[in-house]
Amino acid sequence: MSSTYGTLFKLSTFGESHGPAIGVVIDGCPAGLDFDADFIQSELDRRKPGQSRITTQRREADEYEVLSGVFDGKTQGTPIALIIRNTDQRSKDYSHISEQFRPSHADYTYHVKYGSRDYRGGGRSSARETAARVAAGAVAKMLLRQQGVQVQAYVSQVGKLKLEKSYQELELAKAEENAVRCPDPDMAEQMFAYIDETRKKGDSIGGVVSCVITGVPAGWGEPVFDKLHAELGKAMLSINAVKGFEYGSGFAGVELYGSEHNDAFYTDEQGQVRTATNLSGGIQGGIANGEDIYFRVAFKPVATIMQDQDSIDVHGQPVTVSGKGRHDPCVVPRAVPIVEAMAALVLADMYLRNKAAHL
Amino acid sequence: MSSTYGTLFKLSTFGESHGPAIGVVIDGCPAGLDFDADFIQSELDRRKPGQSRITTQRREADEYEVLSGVFDGKTQGTPIALIIRNTDQRSKDYSHISEQFRPSHADYTYHVKYGSRDYRGGGRSSARETAARVAAGAVAKMLLRQQGVQVQAYVSQVGKLKLEKSYQELELAKAEENAVRCPDPDMAEQMFAYIDETRKKGDSIGGVVSCVITGVPAGWGEPVFDKLHAELGKAMLSINAVKGFEYGSGFAGVELYGSEHNDAFYTDEQGQVRTATNLSGGIQGGIANGEDIYFRVAFKPVATIMQDQDSIDVHGQPVTVSGKGRHDPCVVPRAVPIVEAMAALVLADMYLRNKAAHL
Amino acid sequence: MSSTYGTLFKLSTFGESHGPAIGVVIDGCPAGLDFDADFIQSELDRRKPGQSRITTQRREADEYEVLSGVFDGKTQGTPIALIIRNTDQRSKDYSHISEQFRPSHADYTYHVKYGSRDYRGGGRSSARETAARVAAGAVAKMLLRQQGVQVQAYVSQVGKLKLEKSYQELELAKAEENAVRCPDPDMAEQMFAYIDETRKKGDSIGGVVSCVITGVPAGWGEPVFDKLHAELGKAMLSINAVKGFEYGSGFAGVELYGSEHNDAFYTDEQGQVRTATNLSGGIQGGIANGEDIYFRVAFKPVATIMQDQDSIDVHGQPVTVSGKGRHDPCVVPRAVPIVEAMAALVLADMYLRNKAAHL
Amino acid sequence: MSSTYGTLFKLSTFGESHGPAIGVVIDGCPAGLDFDADFIQSELDRRKPGQSRITTQRREADEYEVLSGVFDGKTQGTPIALIIRNTDQRSKDYSHISEQFRPSHADYTYHVKYGSRDYRGGGRSSARETAARVAAGAVAKMLLRQQGVQVQAYVSQVGKLKLEKSYQELELAKAEENAVRCPDPDMAEQMFAYIDETRKKGDSIGGVVSCVITGVPAGWGEPVFDKLHAELGKAMLSINAVKGFEYGSGFAGVELYGSEHNDAFYTDEQGQVRTATNLSGGIQGGIANGEDIYFRVAFKPVATIMQDQDSIDVHGQPVTVSGKGRHDPCVVPRAVPIVEAMAALVLADMYLRNKAAHL
Repeated sequence: MSSTYGTLFKLSTFGESHGPAIGVVIDGCPAGLDFDADFIQSELDRRKPGQSRITTQRREADEYEVLSGVFDGKTQGTPIALIIRNTDQRSKDYSHISEQFRPSHADYTYHVKYGSRDYRGGGRSSARETAARVAAGAVAKMLLRQQGVQVQAYVSQVGKLKLEKSYQELELAKAEENAVRCPDPDMAEQMFAYIDETRKKGDSIGGVVSCVITGVPAGWGEPVFDKLHAELGKAMLSINAVKGFEYGSGFAGVELYGSEHNDAFYTDEQGQVRTATNLSGGIQGGIANGEDIYFRVAFKPVATIMQDQDSIDVHGQPVTVSGKGRHDPCVVPRAVPIVEAMAALVLADMYLRNKAAHL
Repeated sequence: MSSTYGTLFKLSTFGESHGPAIGVVIDGCPAGLDFDADFIQSELDRRKPGQSRITTQRREADEYEVLSGVFDGKTQGTPIALIIRNTDQRSKDYSHISEQFRPSHADYTYHVKYGSRDYRGGGRSSARETAARVAAGAVAKMLLRQQGVQVQAYVSQVGKLKLEKSYQELELAKAEENAVRCPDPDMAEQMFAYIDETRKKGDSIGGVVSCVITGVPAGWGEPVFDKLHAELGKAMLSINAVKGFEYGSGFAGVELYGSEHNDAFYTDEQGQVRTATNLSGGIQGGIANGEDIYFRVAFKPVATIMQDQDSIDVHGQPVTVSGKGRHDPCVVPRAVPIVEAMAALVLADMYLRNKAAHL
Repeated sequence: MSSTYGTLFKLSTFGESHGPAIGVVIDGCPAGLDFDADFIQSELDRRKPGQSRITTQRREADEYEVLSGVFDGKTQGTPIALIIRNTDQRSKDYSHISEQFRPSHADYTYHVKYGSRDYRGGGRSSARETAARVAAGAVAKMLLRQQGVQVQAYVSQVGKLKLEKSYQELELAKAEENAVRCPDPDMAEQMFAYIDETRKKGDSIGGVVSCVITGVPAGWGEPVFDKLHAELGKAMLSINAVKGFEYGSGFAGVELYGSEHNDAFYTDEQGQVRTATNLSGGIQGGIANGEDIYFRVAFKPVATIMQDQDSIDVHGQPVTVSGKGRHDPCVVPRAVPIVEAMAALVLADMYLRNKAAHL
Repeated sequence: MSSTYGTLFKLSTFGESHGPAIGVVIDGCPAGLDFDADFIQSELDRRKPGQSRITTQRREADEYEVLSGVFDGKTQGTPIALIIRNTDQRSKDYSHISEQFRPSHADYTYHVKYGSRDYRGGGRSSARETAARVAAGAVAKMLLRQQGVQVQAYVSQVGKLKLEKSYQELELAKAEENAVRCPDPDMAEQMFAYIDETRKKGDSIGGVVSCVITGVPAGWGEPVFDKLHAELGKAMLSINAVKGFEYGSGFAGVELYGSEHNDAFYTDEQGQVRTATNLSGGIQGGIANGEDIYFRVAFKPVATIMQDQDSIDVHGQPVTVSGKGRHDPCVVPRAVPIVEAMAALVLADMYLRNKAAHL
């Protein structure tokens, strides 16, 4: 189990879906940062269940408590511990699956690896764990804000409904104005209807979250292994249900010629080095080049569906798994703040590492 | 600069394209492994330049030397240092770009981050660095072989030429029979012609490497952050020119319903837990489930092209960059052993970490 | 701030002396360990304040809560979070020193490094932080117990009062029968009187804690940098007020000839490899050799004394610091469980690392 | 096997006593440092064998080669690989011990842990490994020099011959003027004679190396686990033959009262915060306070002696081990540059970590 992340801005997360609490310790946040307690709560609210009828109806206030690291409204350079009590666990919803392996969940692999598992709500493998990431990510965002860095994610695809516009053609701020978190209002409406229809069928559907990061100065990133995009990729792939990551031109870029793909450098009127195009996605050789960083993250359909499914139990015997519990028919609306949080955590770490890369 | 990788099976790589040597230290390889010196050389030969007219004509024997860690034909549990001398550097090929930033190379970002750079052949940012990875990966493969794990990669796309067959429909061993490393002979021929034509135009083209890993026992992988696919993703994204990673159903999976995407468990005739389908790509909750692991890696077109390009110099002044040097018009044929090497390194580390996950 | 420790059995501690809580997350404890909740409390009770009149009169119940990682009485392989609420903070006791640098405390260095500090009770630099280590150490002891490893520390010196007997000549279990934790009852009485007298003078005094570890199998330890004794040394030196560490023959061993110091190997009646003497302290080349491991840890006199002292304030102006607050006149009695905890944490980590050192 | 060290200024060392080469990769040295190639050689010369008749007569030129990381006389921010070929291995000197366990060597523990061992000259457990540390330490010293930090070690004890003067009473530069590296010429002469006499008896003797570090600014050090003195202690204890470490008042400090031990703060004429005494050894709460840092390191007598000793072989049978090979009768003269190197490596890492501790 590796629930620690980061080299200098380090996380250690903990907590099971139906245990007493989930939380995170951040070790390495520099001292002197204004601690915006309300902002953390607002970020948790963006992730919390029960936001609309297309998200799970589990009722968690997701109120957090600061246990350490903050004094007189400022970070102290000491570890910041944040906990969120679990309050609406309905563990009995899960007693029927205590000996079953739900298809495409982590039940079987946890069972094999650890010999036993907390089956209630998926235990540690539950996406509830990401609330701790969002809380930590909010602290990372505070640090980045001070450096002029903004992270903004949005839903760009649900099932086959795909937003064909690039991020420059969208008003990203509008993403927060609808339940789907798609910045195009028309598309948002279609997506909402589609998710709701899927929900009514007792099914689930996948989607894509896109993310744009602005204001990262040239220089952040630590090749050859900890390239900025490699760390972003790992961070995204560590989120529940993620199946793919691409940045800049991504998979589509493989069809281009070098003469089409290369981003020509020029000096702009302010004397700033820029590139005429940005197929590089703001990262070259694993280091930010000062252009916008953008990437896409693929989420599979949620494994829990309200339909009967064939499976086996812990004894290898065939069983029928029936869908119960409260789940999201599509995770991407709630995944938006999680993607942002993980991106912020990567960048906060890279910011600190870059400081240490110089005399 | 982070040139170290891995938690228990740890690498530390070094070397510039035109410096005296490149190499790697492996710290954490268990003792008692039969050291197959010839196998390392054969893996390096798969990656080395000059294999055919569609790869760079740089002539490097890429012969390696073992400096430590092996005695009486066996690993000793002590660090294994492998070095490869650079012999065919033509540094003067690069003098013209010593003050220029080549488009979509790492010249500018290294310059900004480190204040200076070894401009000869891209210095540390050169893909020559991956020879050290391949050497280390060969050692990881020896370890995995003993555990019954096989890693096999192949080219599945070059530009718009895309192999539509799944890996089960292919004889993967055939990939090594042609210069492109595509297991479908007809497609391989088309790809070869296409790359050669691109080369003649002085241009470059992207591609996709697919990889299949068999024999991984259920249990390998360290959630929540070091999920098996997250580590594979990071490892792949750390390879030069990679723009995207997807495993199992990948980006295509987002368009499926949960009822279509879920992999039903069953017990096979040998009493082994299996899944009827494998959209999970052999990994559930970040842990191997015993099925084949498969993933795809997107490579952009090589940035070096034999055409004039607009750019700027270190003083911000406009310059024309002319293509010189010896480069690959398409990296994917030589990327195949690199993808395998990185996958093997991830798995060797996960194998050791899984041992430590139990009492 | 590095509040994380360990490679595989990893800790992340947090908390200030007068904040809401202190605690620890253990990431990497294997699944399936019987979780002895009472044992953790009993270890905390050995460290807690107010045990006798020679320890600080701060009244902390030091009751802990498990937030995660345990289900059905067993560890789950997931992170174990333990917190201890602070209940008897008298922060006003510290308002007078909010702008003063107490001599030989960490006030000045934290102020310089972090720019601000939580001055209440020493904030993060308070030895209160060690309660989290004791809680984590109790979990490590559970794991070691299963492996047949026992860790036992005791007070061997207070000021000039020095126990001249070796650990083999003592009944170590008797250490827990007196307030000083010295296994020699006569010496314990003298030490108690001496500490009490020192307390009455408003002064403090140093001491030495000795520690013996039995049952460690040959093989644990990770040279060349993470030698078993090097990790033990670091762990001990990380405890508040520690000034020195020696193992085996220690500083006295430098006066011996090699012919006196070498431990001759022999095979005992059970066919077990043993050494005739054990000046090596159970560790050779950084790896346990199966003999008892023993070491000594020097603690300076507590910096807080009930006397006026010259110092300066944050503006550099001379001030008189007057001793207030509730403090130990001698730390070693309460340091005994802390030394044991840190030793247990090192050994638990080495146990897991040794598993990963083999094929 | 953990042959990696450091968080940001990271080492990976490799090499066996009688293998082709030993060496080190430094990953994390910032770019732009003037690379003083001659200085590295001069540091290696201080450690190399054959310096006088009281050191081993093995003849190693210990000439090193730079394989990477340096261009145009400056570090590039990329990994710096340094190798030293072994040239005077007389492996046949060791054939007689290939199946024997030499007393108080690492033969037995390596055999148990790794299942086999390179018995020639101690293989990886040989102090020859420290040449790589000295080379890396020289690079760290270059970095520290630029920050105004000086590291100076000297021999303060050989057997019972103990220099009673404090470092302030000595001209430390004189240490390099004699073969013993003791800054007091009279004592140096006595020590030389004593070591030489010990050598003639075919025996060995222990000693103490003291070390003083000046110019470290207040703020370096990373509590609570990576306290500056804890990292120094670990680094020293990782050196072959070290049995103890103490800093500041050390073990002697335990006999003092707090009122005697506390270091009063004052502001000096330059407005600089100072302490009137320095029993803290320049470190408070794990962080440098700007005063001189000083510590002592205990080295046991070398295990190889030219006398017959009782032992066993790999089959557990009694054997007589006879002393052969070329060894030091006392390691401390050659340990002086090793202690300095390890101290420099710790400080370089702490320097970089401290940069990352601030916004």
